[in-house]
Amino acid sequence: MPSPAVDPAAPSVEAPVDPEPATPVIDDKYVEAGRKLTAMAEEDTRAYDRLAYISDVYGHRLSGSQALEDTIDWALETMREDGLAKVRKEKVMVPHWVRGEEQAAFLAPVERPLPVLTLGMSVGTPRRGITAEVVVVNHVDEIDTLGEQVKGKIVLINMAMPPYDHDHHDSFYGPTVQGRTQGASRAAKYGAKAVLVRSVTAHSLRTLHTGTLVYDEDLPKIPAAAITPEDADLFARMVARGETPKIRLKLGAKLLPDAESGNAIGELTGRELPDEYVVLACHIDSWDVGDGSTDDGSGCLMAMEAALMLKELELIPRRTVRVVLYTNEENGLRGGKAYFEAHADELHVAGLESDSGAGAPWGFGIGGDQAQYDALLPYAPLFEGLGAHNFTLGGGGADISPLTQAGMLGLGLRPDTSHYFDLHHSPADTIDKIAPYHLERNAAAMALMAYILAERELDGPAQPLKVPEPEPEPEPEPEAKAENE
Amino acid sequence: MPSPAVDPAAPSVEAPVDPEPATPVIDDKYVEAGRKLTAMAEEDTRAYDRLAYISDVYGHRLSGSQALEDTIDWALETMREDGLAKVRKEKVMVPHWVRGEEQAAFLAPVERPLPVLTLGMSVGTPRRGITAEVVVVNHVDEIDTLGEQVKGKIVLINMAMPPYDHDHHDSFYGPTVQGRTQGASRAAKYGAKAVLVRSVTAHSLRTLHTGTLVYDEDLPKIPAAAITPEDADLFARMVARGETPKIRLKLGAKLLPDAESGNAIGELTGRELPDEYVVLACHIDSWDVGDGSTDDGSGCLMAMEAALMLKELELIPRRTVRVVLYTNEENGLRGGKAYFEAHADELHVAGLESDSGAGAPWGFGIGGDQAQYDALLPYAPLFEGLGAHNFTLGGGGADISPLTQAGMLGLGLRPDTSHYFDLHHSPADTIDKIAPYHLERNAAAMALMAYILAERELDGPAQPLKVPEPEPEPEPEPEAKAENE
Ligand SMILES: [Zn+2]
Ligand SMILES: [Zn+2]
Repeated sequence: MPSPAVDPAAPSVEAPVDPEPATPVIDDKYVEAGRKLTAMAEEDTRAYDRLAYISDVYGHRLSGSQALEDTIDWALETMREDGLAKVRKEKVMVPHWVRGEEQAAFLAPVERPLPVLTLGMSVGTPRRGITAEVVVVNHVDEIDTLGEQVKGKIVLINMAMPPYDHDHHDSFYGPTVQGRTQGASRAAKYGAKAVLVRSVTAHSLRTLHTGTLVYDEDLPKIPAAAITPEDADLFARMVARGETPKIRLKLGAKLLPDAESGNAIGELTGRELPDEYVVLACHIDSWDVGDGSTDDGSGCLMAMEAALMLKELELIPRRTVRVVLYTNEENGLRGGKAYFEAHADELHVAGLESDSGAGAPWGFGIGGDQAQYDALLPYAPLFEGLGAHNFTLGGGGADISPLTQAGMLGLGLRPDTSHYFDLHHSPADTIDKIAPYHLERNAAAMALMAYILAERELDGPAQPLKVPEPEPEPEPEPEAKAENE
Repeated sequence: MPSPAVDPAAPSVEAPVDPEPATPVIDDKYVEAGRKLTAMAEEDTRAYDRLAYISDVYGHRLSGSQALEDTIDWALETMREDGLAKVRKEKVMVPHWVRGEEQAAFLAPVERPLPVLTLGMSVGTPRRGITAEVVVVNHVDEIDTLGEQVKGKIVLINMAMPPYDHDHHDSFYGPTVQGRTQGASRAAKYGAKAVLVRSVTAHSLRTLHTGTLVYDEDLPKIPAAAITPEDADLFARMVARGETPKIRLKLGAKLLPDAESGNAIGELTGRELPDEYVVLACHIDSWDVGDGSTDDGSGCLMAMEAALMLKELELIPRRTVRVVLYTNEENGLRGGKAYFEAHADELHVAGLESDSGAGAPWGFGIGGDQAQYDALLPYAPLFEGLGAHNFTLGGGGADISPLTQAGMLGLGLRPDTSHYFDLHHSPADTIDKIAPYHLERNAAAMALMAYILAERELDGPAQPLKVPEPEPEPEPEPEAKAENE
């Protein structure tokens, strides 16, 4: 920009070098939408009542379970009753893993029961169980240091999750959960018989937390189970005293043939650009402990409630708001992948996922680049009445990750997560941990954000997703393959 | 006391009407003892190391278990090694209740498992279990309102413990625990088949809390078990929806013949008045879940550590400090009763019990009357370095209650109890909940209080206990008795 003209006769003043950019003017329709949604959230507990109903009546919703399909059917029926458009179930085949009986006990240096909770997708043990010494490591990478020393042993990965720290949000989860996801194959590489993992939580009342593991298909599959932080500490004290703990572990887990499930979808058809989409995302499956109210029943009830609130307030935006209750986030992400395959050619302008529980509203994590963040920041004050006005850079969600990886703007609802990981994947994830007014206000925050994303002007036309070219099938290499076996 | 002489010629001044009593001068020996004990507490983790050892090696210590007797033997051996005098086990016959298998499930309106934890001293169910509808009350007294409506049913006493509140210390426990202690007989009176009790805790991660019940010997004994607060809420929501929950309950609990146990005792012989006693009390038994580190392994390690600290610092007071690790506090108080029967004729000047866990040091509850409280208050500043300088009126402990009821001054150590009832009688009561420096500083606070109680001048000679006359055996009334049967 040119420098301002200066009158040399005028008294010397310092010219403003970096003037503050003018605050963009937010159109009244957004302010009005925020006011109405905030008021509506104060009046109702509908999302909570519905969540309590599915939690109590159907219970937890692991992929392959009847409860998951019953809940999906309930969601479809409910979205139809709510008057959403194009309500349908899009078929997805999902892994059907079953836990079976699980039992473990210390055999040395003491004899006592050892509570265990098998990790999702783990193989079972032989029927007679596995009896072996336990080697303790504090980080999954230490397995490589021990190498062949873990052969024939059970490896305990005793990495403690640090206590919640708001400044680190949930960034402690990623590093800590590696032992759970990778531990079995990392230990199988050196001939370990099984893996135990300290439950990924910073606060335990002798609480077990499951979650999926991921096997390296090139290595033997060995069973893996979570133990409580308390018992992990006990193993560590035994080792510190020079003792060699020995346990028996019996796990009846197995993988059945894939089962039929589906993504449950309903829409609020856009008034001007019905073929452009803003996705409100959650996952309807859960682990098979607790009732999955926090992870992620709450997210699905928020997404459904958000669409219904917009409809009831006649806040129909220009683009279509599409509610997608994804199936099988927990142990396969098959719902997210199937949605992407079926819908990648449609114009997705943004997606907002709720999969961080239903604590008090706090704000949003906004993916994409700084410019996309800057473009949304001026709307933050509209969320103040809901307590959801904190916008941070970086966000999205697992179910919409195929979409965001292809260029869609992804956002994640960010409630207070200070107790999220206390409950996550544990029997303590039950409806009583959720406050009705938190759930309803989070739903209103999602509705307002969906309204903004589906209504606002963009710089140019909506861009199609960048769908990666399918990788060519690798040439068969029969000799190399034989070597690996 | 006579009024001070007034010179009528002196200028008129207002006589002080209620002069502040002069702060009593605390003898240097107490100040010095406080200084030494505070310094010593900073240096060591001995009490914690010992507690971790017994928790890890012997585990929980229910009356009748080998672990209890092994722990008592360890305590006797340790007190001998510590150089305490007259170390001995005083035999006590204790109830031998065993839990057996326990299993329950919802049959209607849903089918799902129901985690249960049998209440201590409960009878079992018939082998095939009990199948019945569940009636929910919010307070044990509501059973009387329902009366015959509970006949043939299982009664759930769904009284929630309020969240911790410092100003109410643990006063919420007393009212809430009545359902657990009295519920079975209160419901049996009207023909109920069994009782479920909401676990007595304000903070749960699907946590079960046991504890003893007390049967009215004139009523049929029906089985009783705790359920989690989460499942209690689920029952309540079912009833609110007009549904009638129905469950199956199988409990294998039974009472075996009394087992031999004992109080473990060691002494620091008083240098001038060896036949006058200050008791340092705790209970060495625990429930058969968790490892009993908080309730009350910590109290016993504090009492042992306190005596050893005094000995090592050569702070031998005038009277004898007697460490008593009582057996069977949890389900019988047989240790407390047996001690009283054996020792009621000895001169007990005070007793200090530690049975409120090992949170950060905070202070003491002081039983007896206001004058006894006022006499100890001037010593409070000596506890500031340990953080245990808050003296409140009212205190004692269950094990020393037969002594305090007979007139002995009773005190209770009062650490921070904000998380005490989260752990109490649950599988989460494990050593990892305790900070070594809290345990050691609480031990030092007990040592200093024991030193003061055993050293200080009293107004006159020590008073014998007021032992109640044994009640005459009631005349046999064969006719009346027949009527009651
Ligand atoms: Zn989730
Ligand atoms: Zn106790």
